[in-house]
Amino acid sequence: MRGARSIPFDALEDNPLRLLSLARDLRRRKARERLGLFVAEGIRVVEELVEGPIETRGVLVGPALAATPRGLALRERLVRAGHTVVDVGEADFASAADTDSPQGILAIAEQPRVGPEALAQRLDGPARLLVLDALQDPGNAGTMLRTAAALGATAVVALPGTVDLWSAKVVRGALGAHFRLPAVHVAWEPFAAVLRDWSVALWGADMAGDPVDTLAPAAPDRLAIAVGNEGAGLSDVVAAHADRLVSIPIAPGVESLNAGVAAGILLYALARRPAAAHAS
Amino acid sequence: MRGARSIPFDALEDNPLRLLSLARDLRRRKARERLGLFVAEGIRVVEELVEGPIETRGVLVGPALAATPRGLALRERLVRAGHTVVDVGEADFASAADTDSPQGILAIAEQPRVGPEALAQRLDGPARLLVLDALQDPGNAGTMLRTAAALGATAVVALPGTVDLWSAKVVRGALGAHFRLPAVHVAWEPFAAVLRDWSVALWGADMAGDPVDTLAPAAPDRLAIAVGNEGAGLSDVVAAHADRLVSIPIAPGVESLNAGVAAGILLYALARRPAAAHAS
Repeated sequence: MRGARSIPFDALEDNPLRLLSLARDLRRRKARERLGLFVAEGIRVVEELVEGPIETRGVLVGPALAATPRGLALRERLVRAGHTVVDVGEADFASAADTDSPQGILAIAEQPRVGPEALAQRLDGPARLLVLDALQDPGNAGTMLRTAAALGATAVVALPGTVDLWSAKVVRGALGAHFRLPAVHVAWEPFAAVLRDWSVALWGADMAGDPVDTLAPAAPDRLAIAVGNEGAGLSDVVAAHADRLVSIPIAPGVESLNAGVAAGILLYALARRPAAAHAS
Repeated sequence: MRGARSIPFDALEDNPLRLLSLARDLRRRKARERLGLFVAEGIRVVEELVEGPIETRGVLVGPALAATPRGLALRERLVRAGHTVVDVGEADFASAADTDSPQGILAIAEQPRVGPEALAQRLDGPARLLVLDALQDPGNAGTMLRTAAALGATAVVALPGTVDLWSAKVVRGALGAHFRLPAVHVAWEPFAAVLRDWSVALWGADMAGDPVDTLAPAAPDRLAIAVGNEGAGLSDVVAAHADRLVSIPIAPGVESLNAGVAAGILLYALARRPAAAHAS
């Protein structure tokens, strides 16, 4: 059995096929967690990845990439920049790909090692954390990361029970958000300690909460906004520890908003925005 | 060849298998448009359907429905209420179903005949229309309908180039929104006439527009909010005729928000809400 992070960069260059088998391994959450690696698939996500600060271990290319000038240009750019680029056949690429119609490129890269401590470093000023409280749908999680990055959130925090933020589908749906803001899996206790030590308020989205309109003017400088599981809502521990519950008023008879849409509205409504914008 | 709406309700009772073949037909947009029918699939959506005002032609049931008490209860309720319920085998059900793992129930129902005229009847008071301007992703369209219903929009209007709002995937994703508010496909000219005749302002979502924060206090009583295609943005005709362009400010370097999230934030921010909520 291999230990954590036991595959040195050089070994990939010595044996290109190891990159393929590594990409296949990384389809499993356990392998991603053990190795601290993830897969970014598709032209656009790989473009975003290599422009960002995250270290890339190697790139797997299938025949489909040559179908577009943009794909060819990306391959050339990667080779020029000194990345390990391994070409494989269509069937091999498909065996590692997460999509049904692969664009023919995926990169293996390192998950940034962002723990609660690194999160705390971001909290010496005003902050907005988006907290995923046992969110299970990878499409929703990807959209929420994308939304958090777009709306200027400080970080995205995934509490236990949440889909792996480093799964291929979440990374793809987030369109590069992982490379712009910290995306952190953390257990409740260390997260609660960060909230306490840095005086970050925790507000939980709940239909029984106060309307976000009325709460928005009183939103504190440092605020964590928790959105619960698609079906079950907030977890017991988050509901019990939330400083406030906040709701988005909806029409009678309609069950709920999509979790990604709800997160977007809350991040927008509770943004640190000059009060003048509302009063004008 | 059958003419439009040529399948009388009675014929279904005489020949149950015709319901199966009709459900299969309705997987195609052309068939849905020609017959004015659509398919609602899944326990929850069928529950919502039969509680709403829309006429149901018949219900197809597969063996999977018996797997849950909720499914069994729904079947019983439909039979008691006098609906045509046809049981078919698993393979037959799968041949008509749109999902990979069908819950074993789908209903064939009538698309409400809501044209521009019926839309106009909703416009004698304050109104919010959500306009889908060539939106192509059925998941986004379903989320946007669900969001529009939840946030109290008056209607959803689909301009040419938009995915069929009555496709099985959109209906499923909208979680019953089709049964709560008008969902209308309309060409630009008749829609423009409605806007003109009823003094409805048209605001288009565009990154180059004025920030929604600053525009919100000036939002008119009757407002149509147009969200453009996922890649291309607003169509030329909507961009040219919009009274204003409105943007959601996002962080530099991030390309955009998901169309469904953007629609949610705009509907929330531009809702007809007491100004006191902002000033408090």
